[in-house]
Amino acid sequence: MEDSNLGERKKSITLRTPIGTRDFLPEDMILREHVIGVIKKVFEEYGYDRMETPVIEFSEVLKGKYGEEEKLIYEFKDRGGRDLALRYDLTVPLSRVMAANPHLPKPFKRYHISRVWRYDNPQRGRYREFWQCDVDIVGSKNMLADAEIILLAVDVFNTLGFRRFQIRINNRKVLDAMCSYAGIEENMKVEALRSLDKIDKAGAEGFAETLKQKDFQNECIQKVLEFIQIRGTSGEKLDSASERLSSYKQGLEGIEELREIMRILAELGVNEKSLGIDLGLARGLDYYTGPIFEIVATDAKIGSLAGGGRYDKLIGCFAGVDIPATGVSFGLERIIDVMKELRMVSPLKTKTVAIVTSIDDSTIMEAFRIAQKLRRAGIPVRTEVMGERKITKQLKYADTLGIPYAVIVGQTEVSTGTVKLKSMEKREEKEIKVEELIEFLKSQLMQSNPASQ
Amino acid sequence: MEDSNLGERKKSITLRTPIGTRDFLPEDMILREHVIGVIKKVFEEYGYDRMETPVIEFSEVLKGKYGEEEKLIYEFKDRGGRDLALRYDLTVPLSRVMAANPHLPKPFKRYHISRVWRYDNPQRGRYREFWQCDVDIVGSKNMLADAEIILLAVDVFNTLGFRRFQIRINNRKVLDAMCSYAGIEENMKVEALRSLDKIDKAGAEGFAETLKQKDFQNECIQKVLEFIQIRGTSGEKLDSASERLSSYKQGLEGIEELREIMRILAELGVNEKSLGIDLGLARGLDYYTGPIFEIVATDAKIGSLAGGGRYDKLIGCFAGVDIPATGVSFGLERIIDVMKELRMVSPLKTKTVAIVTSIDDSTIMEAFRIAQKLRRAGIPVRTEVMGERKITKQLKYADTLGIPYAVIVGQTEVSTGTVKLKSMEKREEKEIKVEELIEFLKSQLMQSNPASQ
Repeated sequence: MEDSNLGERKKSITLRTPIGTRDFLPEDMILREHVIGVIKKVFEEYGYDRMETPVIEFSEVLKGKYGEEEKLIYEFKDRGGRDLALRYDLTVPLSRVMAANPHLPKPFKRYHISRVWRYDNPQRGRYREFWQCDVDIVGSKNMLADAEIILLAVDVFNTLGFRRFQIRINNRKVLDAMCSYAGIEENMKVEALRSLDKIDKAGAEGFAETLKQKDFQNECIQKVLEFIQIRGTSGEKLDSASERLSSYKQGLEGIEELREIMRILAELGVNEKSLGIDLGLARGLDYYTGPIFEIVATDAKIGSLAGGGRYDKLIGCFAGVDIPATGVSFGLERIIDVMKELRMVSPLKTKTVAIVTSIDDSTIMEAFRIAQKLRRAGIPVRTEVMGERKITKQLKYADTLGIPYAVIVGQTEVSTGTVKLKSMEKREEKEIKVEELIEFLKSQLMQSNPASQ
Repeated sequence: MEDSNLGERKKSITLRTPIGTRDFLPEDMILREHVIGVIKKVFEEYGYDRMETPVIEFSEVLKGKYGEEEKLIYEFKDRGGRDLALRYDLTVPLSRVMAANPHLPKPFKRYHISRVWRYDNPQRGRYREFWQCDVDIVGSKNMLADAEIILLAVDVFNTLGFRRFQIRINNRKVLDAMCSYAGIEENMKVEALRSLDKIDKAGAEGFAETLKQKDFQNECIQKVLEFIQIRGTSGEKLDSASERLSSYKQGLEGIEELREIMRILAELGVNEKSLGIDLGLARGLDYYTGPIFEIVATDAKIGSLAGGGRYDKLIGCFAGVDIPATGVSFGLERIIDVMKELRMVSPLKTKTVAIVTSIDDSTIMEAFRIAQKLRRAGIPVRTEVMGERKITKQLKYADTLGIPYAVIVGQTEVSTGTVKLKSMEKREEKEIKVEELIEFLKSQLMQSNPASQ
């Protein structure tokens, strides 16, 4: 079933990439690089330092951390018979690193932008190999940390050019207390929350149906439904929830945490409209212990673009003692899909500003020398390396590549210290001194940017 | 034997990374990022576009391409029983992509900076997981292409701050003709060249000994030794080689290619001292067909930092028809090792310029708001998220992290629109208006750079 794409099957295996993986041609990469660049810039402005870990981990490191999702770990045995896996996310490797390096000063703030793998059935927008961009704070229990993570996420989406997005927040402690309040037994809670995590797709009725099939009592289901559908402003929702959970200490603690995050974010000017309590938000991963959140683009038909939360027990799996931590993970492929869908990017094909060509053999070296001058001024330019192509063919080539200018070097021009500058778009051509050329192309460089906004 | 490190063995397996792989903590990453940034900048200034491919390939894609080295391919079976491998280099994936995408306009100039894997016995400076930085030109047979690749490599090392490095060039066609000239039979040539590739370590005597053991005739060995030890300027070496190989058409062609590259590079001002013919240079990989080269740092006790050459037949393995190609691969770990050895870098620990803290709880939010202002001006700053630490403890923390400035926000300061700015290095502190703070930290930002030169 996995290999059902017949078009693919006909191709020789040696031209294909393994299922769920992709090649990124230069045209794809330019947008990916832009998005990663923006995300990285915001991460660094918040004072987070970059970390990297191997793509391979011992299976044992990953096992027992992800709950139900564990079945998607990309496991294999190496040639020495070791049980290894391609990493499933960037949070568990961070936890291992924190335990292995207890000297790292806390709070530890790091970012990590890299690939992860899931042994999943690929479908539209879902791959076996994909990229995550994570920031985490290790070592602080304070809600300031959770609020900063959300503040940073808001900045990432603003800087990327998103105009309408929504942050939905909830708390695992509240969810746990809600289950108790609904009369769900301890050993059935995980099951209930897993079904709740799928309610966006299944709808309230589908959710109720699933729980029924799993032998949950109708009364429990109704109480959960009624709880997660509490209406009102975020403050009103928390007040109502607080009344219902008044006899559950953990639940009230979770509500206080949410109030604190909302208060901090309001003080820092995060728009109330883009931030809301969602009492039905569950999030799949098992390791969360406190506030959890997701960010969705309001105009796009796709799930969350980023998600995160607090996981105060995960590092303890490795370190032996619990170390509090909170963070967020941005899904690169989804962000790019939505940016394309919402036409937030212009179709730039290359970062190269000009191709430097010569009319004939006699000026090839001069063209190379001019290219070197442009490069020293920081201008990305290509040279012609075929050595024999007619100028018309060279210009057609520049056009195909989307290079906006051609610099043409000929004998006459060499003797006067000038070149011909051709705008590929306007089909205009003029003579220009090399010094002026540098200034002109520099100014063009400033204007070009893959994001249109 | 592989797991012989006892210190490692004692650690719980769940804190370790698989053999030959490493975690990169923020301190390591800052230098890696700097080096990658410089390499990427030069690649882009030459008009090369970025490409990326999956880290996993079908084993079949990699097999039969690397010759003797093939035994180091990191193979495994996925959960579906497919024969896969972690990619061995970035050249074979490029070749597959070129064959799978015949529409890509030629010459195709791309760069690729990413990880590769070798199932090798790790030792000092040698890992199972490491980074390569490649540029390649696909579709040009002209020596302009090979010369541009070398020119670019020279620019990379200059921009990284290397002052003394040497490019050694040879040609597979010359090596092949040399073997014929020495009387080595066709089916023994590969063996001879593999031994020649190790002559740097083995020495001339060791090389001769190895060939003797492999039943090469003494006369053949002496002729090879005499050929590779031809002395003189590069021009003189090529003249002597040309005389000896006068009856080998391919050999003469190879010599002409080398003359052409030397001529182009001389015209473009590449220092004769840093560029030389090395008639004994063989290079390990089987797929080279024309000019080959290596770059070494003259002052460092380590092998080559970059190497490359022409491979006109490799893409044909996938495409069915030959497509000429040439390129270079930079070894990130070796470059970094040498930069450390030669003290070419200053020990910057973080990119973060300042930590913004508050004297007590009452000014935490104001500290956060000032941090946001600084970030909007592009200044990377950290906030304090513990919520309760004493100011002395916060400052000690900033010191440990290597953050050069602390911005301290207190009640008195808030009322006057100022903050305290403390230089962690000079242990000096002064009051400063927020606007001046922004300008001051911006100016500090300009000066900081992990490379000292």
